[in-house]
Amino acid sequence: MKNLAPLALGSEFDKIRRIWRALGDRAAGGGDDCAMVEVGSERLAVSTDMALEGVHFQMGWLQPHEIGWRAGAAALSDLAAVAAEPLGLLVSLGISEEWPDDLAAELMDGIGDVAETVGAKVWGGDLVRSEKLIVDVAAFGRAPHPIKRDGAMVGDALWVTGRLGGPLAALTAWQDGNEPDRLARDRFAHPTPRVGEADWLRAHGARAMIDLSDGLVADAAHLAAASGVRCVIEAGQVPVHAAADPDMALAGGEEYELLVAMPHDFGADNTAEFSAKFDLPLGRVGDVAAGSGVELLRDGSPVELPVGYRHF
Amino acid sequence: MKNLAPLALGSEFDKIRRIWRALGDRAAGGGDDCAMVEVGSERLAVSTDMALEGVHFQMGWLQPHEIGWRAGAAALSDLAAVAAEPLGLLVSLGISEEWPDDLAAELMDGIGDVAETVGAKVWGGDLVRSEKLIVDVAAFGRAPHPIKRDGAMVGDALWVTGRLGGPLAALTAWQDGNEPDRLARDRFAHPTPRVGEADWLRAHGARAMIDLSDGLVADAAHLAAASGVRCVIEAGQVPVHAAADPDMALAGGEEYELLVAMPHDFGADNTAEFSAKFDLPLGRVGDVAAGSGVELLRDGSPVELPVGYRHF
Repeated sequence: MKNLAPLALGSEFDKIRRIWRALGDRAAGGGDDCAMVEVGSERLAVSTDMALEGVHFQMGWLQPHEIGWRAGAAALSDLAAVAAEPLGLLVSLGISEEWPDDLAAELMDGIGDVAETVGAKVWGGDLVRSEKLIVDVAAFGRAPHPIKRDGAMVGDALWVTGRLGGPLAALTAWQDGNEPDRLARDRFAHPTPRVGEADWLRAHGARAMIDLSDGLVADAAHLAAASGVRCVIEAGQVPVHAAADPDMALAGGEEYELLVAMPHDFGADNTAEFSAKFDLPLGRVGDVAAGSGVELLRDGSPVELPVGYRHF
Repeated sequence: MKNLAPLALGSEFDKIRRIWRALGDRAAGGGDDCAMVEVGSERLAVSTDMALEGVHFQMGWLQPHEIGWRAGAAALSDLAAVAAEPLGLLVSLGISEEWPDDLAAELMDGIGDVAETVGAKVWGGDLVRSEKLIVDVAAFGRAPHPIKRDGAMVGDALWVTGRLGGPLAALTAWQDGNEPDRLARDRFAHPTPRVGEADWLRAHGARAMIDLSDGLVADAAHLAAASGVRCVIEAGQVPVHAAADPDMALAGGEEYELLVAMPHDFGADNTAEFSAKFDLPLGRVGDVAAGSGVELLRDGSPVELPVGYRHF
């Protein structure tokens, strides 16, 4: 979900801010990966994520089941980002009249499969005909104790789940007319919403969290803007996917891994437990400092920021 | 929202059924205008509605504010159909890179305006670039006492809010290259989600309800299928919009008026109160009988059914 300010600087985010400003006090919900809303005694997290043929994927790259899985995972990742418990999805599909019913059913099957991995159901949907494939997924969860973007404190450490750059490595291969590395392709086609991981991080004191959809540096900038801090990232510490180069790990979007600010005393014992439990690395990539924006270091010296993934 | 069976027969509905069958027990929520879900002690109604340039409207027909209003109203109408109290909307926008930010803000302003009329907020959204304009709106409400499609009983009477055919009259004019009648155009551009009306009907004993999105006859068929009854409609009693002809009132979709089954003793005194309160007619259009499907009468004799509005 792309939401209200505070977002980092950037033309895409300016556009979003301008659209949202039109709403004034008719908007509510905050500036996180999810909107946080109260309904009676329940605190809910809600989000929406649209995937569009030609923007987020090309038809030749993915099977229908993978397109569905990926779109569902993207929406569920927004719930993970605030440590919400996923409950249900609404799915709006725009599909071509020429698409056989089987393919639409396979796509929905992919959404159902990823939802099932985190205990969510598909609650309903809409279906329209469209030349380009559209998959818009709204996700709902319960979030009694949400972890938001705005809680990072000076002295916290920044951690990242998984190894980054795989989706961009796959994307780059496709755009160059090559077949991607098998593992990189799988990172693009089958991202894992880090729901259990987020809950574990919450239980271990997470102060601020965001999922990596715009890219590590770009999302760190959102977290910095929301928390009123500076995120200092040591490039050499960012875990890099085997099929990616280090620049891809900094700039690549749609990772659906988590960037989290943990208290300073969170350390090696904890990460060992995390890695054993989830079969996933948790890597320390930097620190939260006073100031604003993102500082990228290489061997301790500041270097230029990469440009994050942009839709606009 | 287009949801699980029971739906009436028809190729569009076959397609929807087939897609939904792929989910098996990973689906939940039922076959109404909204999915009805329980979260803790709250009963929620949720729905999603996608409007697409070239399918639901052409850019030359409507101003951006009207496109936003109409998309928001369609989603909110699903909440009205189950007599839910609207709470919030999520809005996914696909807009062209060439669209000035002002137009996107005007569109969002239209969504905010229609949400405000029924006490709902815009909670969040997503923004992607798209050659064709896409507005997908997910709507959430509280529904402690929902009126569903499946409660109609033999002996009930069928009632309709408003006068039908205006949206189709406008659509027909545009498609013929003419400027529509002003009032018909307004019915197309500014539909009113009948939230207050639905709550009043609920309080006065409504047994089954549906909003008119596929057309009176098609939606009556959905209600009949869900309730296991036959809807008998007297064509001459259907209230017709001043700019429409009677066939348009039977077949025209996207009215966002309500079709409701009321107990037999609901009558003239009640409708006078309704009309005075909402400045809107409530017309008796037929009866609920034993059997299945829809029977259309003209002066008491069965006539052929019109074809409802179809996306596929």
